[in-house]
This record gives sequence, C-alpha cells and structure tokens, in this order.
Amino acid sequence: MSDFPIHRPAAGARPGALAIPPGSPPPVVRLMQYDEAGLEEREVADLDELVPYANTETTTWIDVQGLGDERKLLRIAEIFGLHPLAISDAVNVPQRAGIESYPDQLLVVARAPWRTVDGATRVPQVCLLVGRGYVLSFQERYFGFFDAVRERIRRGGGPIRRSGPCYLAYALVDALVDHYFPVVDELADALDELEEEVLADPTPALIARVHRLQRRVLVLRRVARPMTEMVARLAIEPSPFVTESTRLYLRDTRDQAQQVLGRLESTREASLDLMNAALATLGHRQNEVMKLLTLVGSIFIPLTFIAGIYGMNFEHMPELHARRGYFVVLGVMAAVAIAMLGYFRRRGWLGRRSRRRR
Amino acid sequence: MSDFPIHRPAAGARPGALAIPPGSPPPVVRLMQYDEAGLEEREVADLDELVPYANTETTTWIDVQGLGDERKLLRIAEIFGLHPLAISDAVNVPQRAGIESYPDQLLVVARAPWRTVDGATRVPQVCLLVGRGYVLSFQERYFGFFDAVRERIRRGGGPIRRSGPCYLAYALVDALVDHYFPVVDELADALDELEEEVLADPTPALIARVHRLQRRVLVLRRVARPMTEMVARLAIEPSPFVTESTRLYLRDTRDQAQQVLGRLESTREASLDLMNAALATLGHRQNEVMKLLTLVGSIFIPLTFIAGIYGMNFEHMPELHARRGYFVVLGVMAAVAIAMLGYFRRRGWLGRRSRRRR
Amino acid sequence: MSDFPIHRPAAGARPGALAIPPGSPPPVVRLMQYDEAGLEEREVADLDELVPYANTETTTWIDVQGLGDERKLLRIAEIFGLHPLAISDAVNVPQRAGIESYPDQLLVVARAPWRTVDGATRVPQVCLLVGRGYVLSFQERYFGFFDAVRERIRRGGGPIRRSGPCYLAYALVDALVDHYFPVVDELADALDELEEEVLADPTPALIARVHRLQRRVLVLRRVARPMTEMVARLAIEPSPFVTESTRLYLRDTRDQAQQVLGRLESTREASLDLMNAALATLGHRQNEVMKLLTLVGSIFIPLTFIAGIYGMNFEHMPELHARRGYFVVLGVMAAVAIAMLGYFRRRGWLGRRSRRRR
Amino acid sequence: MSDFPIHRPAAGARPGALAIPPGSPPPVVRLMQYDEAGLEEREVADLDELVPYANTETTTWIDVQGLGDERKLLRIAEIFGLHPLAISDAVNVPQRAGIESYPDQLLVVARAPWRTVDGATRVPQVCLLVGRGYVLSFQERYFGFFDAVRERIRRGGGPIRRSGPCYLAYALVDALVDHYFPVVDELADALDELEEEVLADPTPALIARVHRLQRRVLVLRRVARPMTEMVARLAIEPSPFVTESTRLYLRDTRDQAQQVLGRLESTREASLDLMNAALATLGHRQNEVMKLLTLVGSIFIPLTFIAGIYGMNFEHMPELHARRGYFVVLGVMAAVAIAMLGYFRRRGWLGRRSRRRR
Amino acid sequence: MSDFPIHRPAAGARPGALAIPPGSPPPVVRLMQYDEAGLEEREVADLDELVPYANTETTTWIDVQGLGDERKLLRIAEIFGLHPLAISDAVNVPQRAGIESYPDQLLVVARAPWRTVDGATRVPQVCLLVGRGYVLSFQERYFGFFDAVRERIRRGGGPIRRSGPCYLAYALVDALVDHYFPVVDELADALDELEEEVLADPTPALIARVHRLQRRVLVLRRVARPMTEMVARLAIEPSPFVTESTRLYLRDTRDQAQQVLGRLESTREASLDLMNAALATLGHRQNEVMKLLTLVGSIFIPLTFIAGIYGMNFEHMPELHARRGYFVVLGVMAAVAIAMLGYFRRRGWLGRRSRRRR
Repeated sequence: MSDFPIHRPAAGARPGALAIPPGSPPPVVRLMQYDEAGLEEREVADLDELVPYANTETTTWIDVQGLGDERKLLRIAEIFGLHPLAISDAVNVPQRAGIESYPDQLLVVARAPWRTVDGATRVPQVCLLVGRGYVLSFQERYFGFFDAVRERIRRGGGPIRRSGPCYLAYALVDALVDHYFPVVDELADALDELEEEVLADPTPALIARVHRLQRRVLVLRRVARPMTEMVARLAIEPSPFVTESTRLYLRDTRDQAQQVLGRLESTREASLDLMNAALATLGHRQNEVMKLLTLVGSIFIPLTFIAGIYGMNFEHMPELHARRGYFVVLGVMAAVAIAMLGYFRRRGWLGRRSRRRR
Repeated sequence: MSDFPIHRPAAGARPGALAIPPGSPPPVVRLMQYDEAGLEEREVADLDELVPYANTETTTWIDVQGLGDERKLLRIAEIFGLHPLAISDAVNVPQRAGIESYPDQLLVVARAPWRTVDGATRVPQVCLLVGRGYVLSFQERYFGFFDAVRERIRRGGGPIRRSGPCYLAYALVDALVDHYFPVVDELADALDELEEEVLADPTPALIARVHRLQRRVLVLRRVARPMTEMVARLAIEPSPFVTESTRLYLRDTRDQAQQVLGRLESTREASLDLMNAALATLGHRQNEVMKLLTLVGSIFIPLTFIAGIYGMNFEHMPELHARRGYFVVLGVMAAVAIAMLGYFRRRGWLGRRSRRRR
Repeated sequence: MSDFPIHRPAAGARPGALAIPPGSPPPVVRLMQYDEAGLEEREVADLDELVPYANTETTTWIDVQGLGDERKLLRIAEIFGLHPLAISDAVNVPQRAGIESYPDQLLVVARAPWRTVDGATRVPQVCLLVGRGYVLSFQERYFGFFDAVRERIRRGGGPIRRSGPCYLAYALVDALVDHYFPVVDELADALDELEEEVLADPTPALIARVHRLQRRVLVLRRVARPMTEMVARLAIEPSPFVTESTRLYLRDTRDQAQQVLGRLESTREASLDLMNAALATLGHRQNEVMKLLTLVGSIFIPLTFIAGIYGMNFEHMPELHARRGYFVVLGVMAAVAIAMLGYFRRRGWLGRRSRRRR
Repeated sequence: MSDFPIHRPAAGARPGALAIPPGSPPPVVRLMQYDEAGLEEREVADLDELVPYANTETTTWIDVQGLGDERKLLRIAEIFGLHPLAISDAVNVPQRAGIESYPDQLLVVARAPWRTVDGATRVPQVCLLVGRGYVLSFQERYFGFFDAVRERIRRGGGPIRRSGPCYLAYALVDALVDHYFPVVDELADALDELEEEVLADPTPALIARVHRLQRRVLVLRRVARPMTEMVARLAIEPSPFVTESTRLYLRDTRDQAQQVLGRLESTREASLDLMNAALATLGHRQNEVMKLLTLVGSIFIPLTFIAGIYGMNFEHMPELHARRGYFVVLGVMAAVAIAMLGYFRRRGWLGRRSRRRR
Repeated sequence: MSDFPIHRPAAGARPGALAIPPGSPPPVVRLMQYDEAGLEEREVADLDELVPYANTETTTWIDVQGLGDERKLLRIAEIFGLHPLAISDAVNVPQRAGIESYPDQLLVVARAPWRTVDGATRVPQVCLLVGRGYVLSFQERYFGFFDAVRERIRRGGGPIRRSGPCYLAYALVDALVDHYFPVVDELADALDELEEEVLADPTPALIARVHRLQRRVLVLRRVARPMTEMVARLAIEPSPFVTESTRLYLRDTRDQAQQVLGRLESTREASLDLMNAALATLGHRQNEVMKLLTLVGSIFIPLTFIAGIYGMNFEHMPELHARRGYFVVLGVMAAVAIAMLGYFRRRGWLGRRSRRRR
C-alpha cells in the first residue's frame, strides 16, 4: 500500500483539464439497464449507443473501466452533459473522497483498498455520477469492487431491481466500504502477530516491520477519513438524487465506515504503544547484559591486577620470599571478591536478577 | 479482551443479508408482559405465539438469546415488521453502537463488556428494537446483563411496572452501561498495582503486562466511545419512542457513560506516562551500572598494564635491578589510581552517587 | 490524591437506588435562613422541622453534612419533593460534575479538591439542589469548602443577604472553584522544584516523583474538565432557577475554572517535556561514561596484551635476548597509544569533551 | 518568563473583593481627552477631577498605572459606575483574557509579554473598560505597551483622533498583540540556534536549555490562546460598545493573534521533535563508542588470556620447551584476531562505520 | 524552506502603516483587460493610466510585482479606493492566509511555496483584491505562480475569457494551491528515501536530515492550514464578489487544499514514527554490541585472572610443582568457560542471536 502518485495537469492548467493516468487502458463501457421485469446487460462498443440512456426512465448503470482515451471520455461527458470539473474529478485520479452537486448529477468520489495480483494493496479511486435515470461509474481499470452488486442485479429478487439509480449508487458505495474490512482486519492481525515477537526480542527487522505497518495504517487512514465524511454527507445532506429511504441505508454504510476508521485509529495507537514497549524492553535487556559485564569486570579486573603485581620480575620484592605470601595474597583476593559481591547485593543487583528469574 | 472478530456477509452482499455468528446457539425466546397489576413470564417455544404481542398495549419484552437459526430470526422480523437493515444490524455482530429510527421501531445497538467463565473479557453486542408496545432484545447468546432488570420487573414496586417500553429500553441500556464500571475499575486497579513494580524494576515481563493492559484499554475505549455517543443521542434526539420523562433518566445514564470514558482516557494516559517513567528509570540504572564498570576499569586496566610491563622477561630491563624499583612502581600505581579518583570526583561521578544514597 | 473509588448500587439496580458511601457519618443538617433584615442559623435535630422551609419566600440554605443514614436522606427527599435520580446523584458519590433540570429544582453536581488532615488530597463531591426558595447542599462529611460563604452570610453587608437562592448557589460553586487554585499552584510549584533536580541528575527516585505528580495532575484534570463544563453550562443555559444577574457572576467563575484547567494542561505538558529531557540527559551522561571507559580500554587493553606476550615463558623467544628489545617494545607501545589518541581526537571524542568543559 | 503567581482573595471571599498585587505602586492616573480639533493630556492628581469625564461626549482615555491603593481604585469604580466584578477583574491580576458585557461598559481583559529591564519576560495583565465616551485602562504598573498609541494621538492625522472610544480600545488591544511578535520571534530564533548545536552534541546543558525554552513556549501559549479567543470574540460578538467599522480592524488584529498562536504551536512541536532527534543522536553516538570498545576488547582480551597461559610458572608445561612453541602461539593469536575481524565485518560493524565516513 | 521573517511596522503603529519588505524591487504593474472578443495586455508605466480601469465593465487584471515603493503603492490604493488595512495586508508580508470583505473589494491573502533559483523553498504571500470589474494582485517580486493563467487568458477558448473577475480570482487561487503539490510530493518522497536508510543505520547525519525534513513539514503545514481554511471560506461564505457558479470551482480547489493538508499531516506522523523506529533500532544494535563484549569479557577476564595467579613469582606456590598442575588448571579454565557459555545459553543470549541470523 504505497503512497499514491497523483496524476495532475500542470500547475495553473485550465480547470477540467484531463490528466490521463499513465498506463490506464482504453475505456471499456459496460451497461446494465434493468427494472423489476427485466435486465439488459452488454458491452458498449460505439459510444453513440449511449445517447438514449442519458434520458431514460429505466435505471441504467454505465460502468466505464479504464481511462486511457481522452477523446472517448470527453464524448461520454458530452452525451451525459457532465460539467468539466466532474469529468476531470473522475479522470485525474486520485482525488480526495467527497461529493459535489451539479445541476444534472451528483458526483461521488470514493476510494477503497484493492489487493492486486502481485500481493500489493492499492487504494484506487472510483467515481460515480448519479443522474436522474442512470449511474455512471469511472474506474482507472477493471477492479472487482462491484462484482457482487452486478451479480445481485442479475439474480434479481432483492430491492435493487425495484429501486432507482439512487439505491444503485448506495449499493456501489456500500460495496466499496465493504472492501476496507479485510484490509483493516489484516493490518490488525499483522500487528497482533508482531506484538508477541517484538515484546520477546525487538530486532531491527521486527522494528522495521512495525514501522512499515504504521505507514500502511497511516495511508489507509488518510484515505478512510474523507471516505467516512463523504458517506456521512451523502447520508445527511439533502439532494434531489438521494431519496429519503436510501438515506436509511446510507446511514448504515456510514456506521460501517466509522467502524473502519475507529479500528484504524486504535491499530495505530497500539502500534505506537508497541514501539514504546519495545524501547523499554531493550533498555532492560541492556541493563541485564551490562550488569553481568560489570559484575565480572569489577571483581576480576582488580584481582588480575593484584596477580599482575606479583608477576613482576623485580629483584627486590620482599613479599615473594615470604613463607605464606602466596596464601596471604589469595586471601586478600578472596576478601576483595567478597567485598564486591557484598556491594552488588546491597545495590540490589544480585537480588533483583534472581527475583526476576523466579 | 481480545479484539473483535467481525462476522459479516461477503463484500457487496445485499443489505440486510444475515451472517449468523459462528457458534451462536439457536434462539431461545423469553417473554415478559407486564403492567402494574400483573406479570406474565414464559419461554416462547413456537414463534407464532409472538404474533399477538406485535400489536399490544401492555408492555412486552421479548428477549431473543442466541442467533443461530436464520429462519427463526427472519420469522421474528416478519412478525414485528422489522426493516431488513434492522434485523441484519441485530444479527451481524458486532456493529458500532448507535441508534436508527425506523417507521415502527427505534433500533438501539449497544455493546458492553462481559467476563466469561474462563476469565476472558468479551464485549458482545446487544441490540434493542423499541416498538410501540414492546421491546425486542437480541443477544448472541445468554449473557447476564439483564438479570437485575428482570428481577426488578418480577418484584414490581419500582417505576418499571408502571412505565412503558421506553422506560424498559432505558433500564436495559442503563444495565449495559453499569457493566462497564467493574471492568474499568479493574483496569485502573491493575495499572495502579503495576505502577510501583514498574518504577522499582521495569522488567520485560512487566513491560509486556503494561502493554497488554494498554491494548485492553484501547479496545474498551473504542467500544465505549460510540456507546457514549449513542446514549447521548438517545437522551437528546427527539423520537416518538422515547418519552420526555425517560430522557431525564437517559441523561443520567449518559453522564455515567461519560464517566466511564473519562476514566478510560486517563487510565490510558497514565499507562503512557508509566512507560516513559520506565524508560527514564532504566536509563538511570544503566548509568549507575556503567559508572561502576568505568570506575573499576579506568583505574585497574592501566595499573595492570604497568604491572604487565614489569612482568616481561627481557634480559635487559634496567628498572628490574634497581634497589627501590618495586616500591617506585607501587608508588606510581598509587599516584595513577589517586589521579583517576580525583578525576571522577571532579566529574561528580563519585559525589553524585553518594548524594543519591543519602 | 488517589483515584476515586466509586460507590454504586449493583449493576442493573433500580435508578435512584442509594449506595451509602461506606464510612460516611450520619447526616448533620445545618440551616441558615436569611434576608437583608435578619438571619436564623441552627442545626436541625428533627427532620420534620424542615417541612415549612420547602415552601418559603425567604432564602434558606440547608446543608446536609454526612450521608450515613438512608432513611433520613429519603425523608429529606420526600420533604423537598426530590426526584429519585436527584437524591441518588447526591448520595452515590462521586458522579461526574454536571447540571440537571428537574421540575422543582436545579441539580448541580460539583467536585473540588480538599486536603485532609493527614496531608492527602481528596476530590469529594458536593451536590446542590436549587429550589424556588432554598438551596439544599449534600456533602459526604463536613468539609470546610463553605466556611467563608457562611461567614459572609453571618456578617451581611455584601450582596449575598440581598439576593436569593440562585446567588447563594453561585457563591457555593464559586467557593468550590476557589479551592482548586491552591492545589493547582502546589502541583505547578512541585514540578518547578523537581525540574532543576531532574535536569541535574534524573535518579529513579526523582523519576518516580515526577510520575506520581503526573498521576495527580491527571486525576485533577479529569475532575476539573467536567467541573468547568458544568460551570459554563450553568452560566449559559436558560433555567428558571438562575437569574440573569447571577449569570454575570457565573461567567466570572467559569473563567476561573478555565484558568484552572489551562494551568493543569500546561503543568501536564511540562511534566511530559521534563521526562523527555531526563531521557536525553541520561543518554548524554551514559555517553560520557562510556567514552571514558572506551578510551582507557582501547588504549591499555592492547598494550597489556603486548606486555603479556613478552611475559610468556617460552624458551625460544629471540626478542627477549635482543639488547634493545625492551626499549623497542616500549616505543611500540607508545606508538600504539599515540595512534589511538589520534584516532579519538579525529572522531572528536577528546575535543568535544573538552569543548563542553569550556 | 516564569509562571504567573496569582494574587487572589481567600477562597470563598465575596465576589468583587480586591487583592492588591503585592509591590504594585499606588495608581498614577493619566488622562487624554481628544477630538479631531484638539487634545487635552494631563496627570490627574485628585480623583474627583474625573467625575465630569464619566459623562462626556468627547473621547477620553483614562490610564490607571499601578494598583497599589484599594481606596483610590474603589473611588474610580464609583465614579464610573463599575460593577464590583469588573473592578476586581481589573485588580486581581492575572485573569484569563476575555470579554464581559456590563450594562455601562464592555470589560476587556488582555495579557501581553513585556521584557523587564533585568531581561526577564513577564506577561502582565492589562484591563480595559470601554464606556460610552471613555476607555479606562488598568495596568499593574507602568508598562510601555501603549506608548506608540499615545504618540499617535498626540501627532493626530490618522483615524484615531476622528474616532471614538471603540477605535481607541481597538488600538490598545492591537498594540498588546503587537508586543507578542518580538517574543515569539525570539523564541523561534533561540530554537533555531539551539537546533544545530543539539544535533551536533546534545549535552545536558543544551538539553536543559531546550527544556527551559519549551517551558517559556508553554507559558506564552497558555496566555496567547485565550487572548486570541478574546480578540476573535471582540471582532464577532455584537456589542453596543463596538461599531461595525471597528470590527474590520479587530478582525485584522485577530488574524495577527492567530499567527502568533500558530507560530507558538509550531515552535513547540519543533522543540519536541528536536528532543527526539537528540535522543536518536545520542543513541547512535553510544553505539559508535561501544562498537569500538567491543572491537578492541573482543580481540585483545582473548589474546591476553592466551599470553597469560604461557606466562604461568608451572614446572611442567611441555609447550614452553617446544622449539617453535612461541611462533605457533603467535600464529594462533593472529588467527584468533583475524577470525574476530572477519566476524565483525560479516556483522557489518566495520563496513558500516567506514561507509559512514565516506 | 526557512521560517518566515515577518516585516511589520513598529508595535502600536497606526493600522494601515506600510512596512516595505526589505529588498523588494519597485513595483512593476502588468495589466490584462479581456473579454471573449479581445485582449489588451501591457505594462503600465504611469500609474495614472490605471484610473479608468477602476470603473470598467470589462474584466481587468492588474498584477503588481514588487512592493519597493511606498508612494506608488499608496497611489494604487487611492485609485482603486482601497481600505488602509487592505493595502497594508497586501504589503506587510507575510500575513496569515484569509479573506476580508470591504465595501468595494474582497481581500484574499494567500501563500504558496516557491522554489527559488538557488534551490531554497520560500513561501511568499500573494494578495488579491477582487473588485467589481477588476482583480488587483500584489506580489513581493515576480514569481511564476500565475504564468499558466496568463497563458490561458492569451490563448482564450476556455471559460476564463467568458467569465468575470471572480472566475479570474478563482483561477489565481487555484494556481497557488497547485504549487503546493510538487513541494508536498518532494517532502513525502524525501521521507520515503530516508526511511530505508534510517532503518538500516540511523546515523546522526540521517537523524539530522529527518529532523530538518520535519521542520520543513511543520513550516509548510502552518502555512497550508490557514490557506485551506481560506479557500473553504471563499467557497462557502456569501459575498457579492463571488458568483454561485464560481463557488463550484472553489469547492474543487478546497478539496485539493485539503488533500495537501492531509498529506502533510501524514508525512509528519510518518516522520515521528520513523524517529521512534530509529530509537528502537539503535537500542537493539546497542544490545547486540554489548552482548558480544559481555560474552567475551565474562569468559576471558576470569580465565586471565586464573592464568595471572599462576604467573605470580612467589617462592612458595605448591601447585606450580605438581606434576599435572598445568593440565588441571587448563581443565578448570575449560570448565569455567563452559559454565559461562551454558549460562548465556540459558539466558537466551546465544540462542536468540543465532535465531535472528536464520
């Protein structure tokens, strides 16, 4: 889940200028028109076929997959009478999630995480334009966000076939919010797994993994926050394109988005806490290591010095010839060692270590 | 108090789709119908018995314990005319605590901590549907949250038997908030206990315990925050299902929920402070240990070197034959040791350590 | 200032159930009735004497000191027509500071710090019930919060004798807020004193004192925040029990409460900063200690090794018999020492230490 | 910029009680009355001279410098009909910055930093009372805050002589906000200077300086925040004492105050970041020092041990008599040293250090 | 991106006093007057030529580049009837970004980052005055912010030539917001690059680079926050100078500004996380280094002491003459070494290190 590269026209360019995202395939336009009675589903080869759908009573979903052809995009904008800003918000990905009311459409900019085949997680933008009889959706390329919705329309039976474009728009936004949950769960689970390992031994490799996890949470939170606000506004702000009965559903979606956000917040805080716990753990480890070295060094370095003295080769060293010299020195050494141990015990360094071991 | 696993239909599923929580037992339906004069209490075996209670003047509490049978749940939803989103919010646990107005019911989603028999703390969801004459409550399995309320109804005497479903709903929500207090107290007490131990010796085991405590506080706070908002909205937002006199009680419950939240916040902050204090304590310990090693090493390592020189076996070492060579060298050694001690005292390493001991 | 133990009825108990705080003495009821002309002050032995005061035009203050007798408390509640929630908020201490409007009274729950005779600081609750002609106050036991107000009433002369129960309530709340200042000053002063000591030598004992100070600030802030909100609401929200002219005074009290809160906030932040400064100070100390050991060790450990080589007792060691062997080795040792010193100087370890001393 | 000592009447004292700040000189009253045509400026010796100015059409500024005489202050309050709370807010310094509407005056409590002659920075309070024809200002002693405004009135020419007391009040508040800028600049500059030094070598002395800077920023921010709110309220809230055209100027002052606050906030955050950077820098230094000691110690301590073995004086040590024993041991030592170096290089300790030097 | 030096008149100076920024060149005035039909573009040499443009129907853009001549600036203010505060906000750079309504103009103060030729990034102020037929823009010197807008006016074709001064003002503000993106991208990229390096080896040089990056983010955020608020207010607050259709465009710009701000916030948080990760990494490195030294020291220092004992030259040391004395001592040494290794393995110091290497 790398940070997003923003494709954007040069600074100061005309509003509505399009910056085709590099690598985006040419648009494939899939159309579904349905009511309770029937369903027409097909791929639109010639854009002029779309003209009648701009003024229709039957609910129509036009899904534009791929943004790689400016001329085609402008033709779609022309057919549906899109405002230049609306089409540029759809194409110049990614925008901040939000809604905007135009006279003939409601623009919904949304983003959701998607796991690509190579295991990376991207957060592509999906843009909806809710008109009087239709919903236009724009995606950079084909993502599977809407597969389940498409399936429900095909199956029929639920409320979706009985409802208008506003319910369809809700269903699409709801599907996008649903795609946050597995990623958020995965991040929380990854942290849970790292936790015990980090508390046991906070190696640089683990620290780096925690840090990368924090980055991913930050990126997702930055996207999820405006997404949540967007859904909340959609559920609350009056608009001719959102019926009262759909608002009920949107409030449900808003609650889900807030749940996502709350979970991201607490995953982040838990990761910060973990970093602090790692620091304290390392500090204590260090203490234990150093106490041992200090213990050994403080006892044996002075003793070695004493031994060194009597290892000197001076001709005139009276002690060397003393009968019990050797044993006296051994006694002195033992006394020094015992004194040091006593000092350590008084400081609590020996006692504490053993207490911890119990 | 592990993080919650969310049971949820596949992404993009029809709103209102039910995801039965795995392991949830089949529903047991307990019914209480009461007024000031009398009380009928029984377990409902056949759901069709519920039909008359959907349109009754006498206050009725239908408590559904267990969510393990989709058909039965849908039948209950049908009898009481529940909105698909309402029944799915009740079943697809856990949701974010909140309220939602439906034409015929007020939906209340709440969560509260419950200590299971094996000592773990879970934060299950309880869902209330307040209708015109009844309260429907849904729990994943039997929890004891409502035992005291049931007892009060049986005993009679208080306002509960004289009041309608709205007061009953209040009593249930209040009972849920009450169950936060022992858990919050326990977390605060656990931190208090850890505090002195950590300040005395911040071992990795203690650090890990503080960290796990922080996780529990985070989880509970994430649940308590929307719970508090929910109670506040219940106390303030106009609704045909909440009478003015009950709002007075709900505001009292809201104040309790805010007290819970305030205490969680300050427990969290205190735990962060403790981690910092642990770090500083460890840093100082480390200093004390290192100062001792440095003191001993800086004095005796050079002295040992001097002794080493005169322990060499060169044939031509004039000092070895000097009459007072040995004593001169001992004097030099003493001078070096005294110079080092003087240096340490000037740096305040000796003085400071002794000052601290006073 | 330990964290508060909450006395509370069992979870799910009837709202209004009383949980007498353990150890609270039986209520002593002190009564003051006054107007500009005169003052009646006495202790009420028989609660039935209170009946006429529930419907009086002359301002009356009934101060209930001690909550240790449920029957008496219920009798007072009955005489003044208190709502069950009001009397339970007064008795089940501590509640979150707040206000609540009842038909016949305004309930004010407040808390303020009080230093007990044994030097500990508690934050007891005081509850006021402002009625049409009277103010009822409830305290867990006798605290001196209101001594100065009582004295002002006795002396007369000021506005208090000319004003009604609403001004009296203000005077009581103001007296409570006043009692925050010495505690807040003491905390800030304690931090100021700790500061220089900690920056000079952050011993574990000092760290623990800073941490305990942080706990006290946290506890007081958690209490002061709802207290401030409460005073602000009292000053702003319309109520039949608060006259417009008293609001002016209450706004002044609100500003004082905000000053208390602001000071607590910055004391807290300063203590966090101090902890960080302590960590950095310790880190630098550690560096200084380790640099010395490394300096001494890196120079003398290799030299001692060289001396050790020529202290070996091999029969065939040609150097030992060389005429100038001893002096060559001494020269090599000097060269090694000089090379190490040069290396340290290049790394800036010698230079930096001396620069700092300047 | 030490924290402020609050002079305040005893807890529970009558509202409006005056607590003369200790050391405050007796009041000197300077009067300016002006219109476009002329200016009268003088020091008022006898307070009774002020009586006519309480009811005048011509703009009058009465500047009270010094609060050291309760009787005089009460006389001024009497002449201008000040509310007891207003005069006590003016005298019992410092209050939280704020505004309060009284029937005959608008009270403005403000605070601004002032550098005293001994180099310390204090944040004294200035209180304004804007009446129908006059502005009363109260300061604890003479500060130079208003010198430039006085000069502008004397010079005339600008809008000040054409405008009423409300514009004068604006000019005074604006002058106070202006005095924040040099202090805020100085704090930011001091941090900038400390920054490079701290990153180069974070000595305890520098750490302590950063910490003291943080304290000053905290104190100033705590004062600047209510000051900014106060100016914003002055610019927005309707008041009979503030004309619409003056609001325009006040909004400009508000923007300045917000700029001050924003800068304090980011100075604070930058100082926190610096402390963290210092910690990391110290950590790395420590690593470098320890790596050297470990390198030297790990190589030479084992070698010295080997030399020590063959320095023992046992009668039966076959190796000592081997022809090539000495050279074999030297070879073993070289092998051990090379093995250790290889280990260090594999761990990256040698490579990394040299990489860094490039 | 150094912190901004504020040029400001002396404290207490007359509002509207001008403080010419030092080094600002004398104003060059470039004029564009255009409608759909045609375009007049020229440099205005004599300011009196501007008089007719103050009352014109055709959209006119007067761009004042350079503020280095007070007399000229006052002449411009006079011609267009600017309020003294308006012209001083334009000249006394930098102000906080914001808007202000004057009777005849809307004042817009904006700031945007600009990379100077020497590679430094400044955040100059640009001030717009939107009048009924014209837009006046003031910049400290020529910056290229508006080059693309000028080009669009010249080319014609887009909406800009068909629209009035309000659309022009939008286009200029939008161009300013556009200039934030490359700087924000650069900061985020710089952090990304530093990240891997810091996690691999957090040297002081890298720490200092991270810290300087944090400073730049702080400076930019402090500027971007009021800028975002300003655009939001421009998009929402009713003003006679902003048409409803332009608000649509401004809301788009506001979303962009919020995206900038969101990205700065998360760059900042990521940098704080990185600092923490660096600390933990350093802590672990330290542990590894110390563990090696302790391992080597704890084994060989005692052994060297034993060797030292038998290197003493006492006449009477019975062991020296024992037949197998040497071999017994070697055996004791091996036993000590094995015991120490066993101790280390039990403490997990050997095992853990090798586990990490896998």
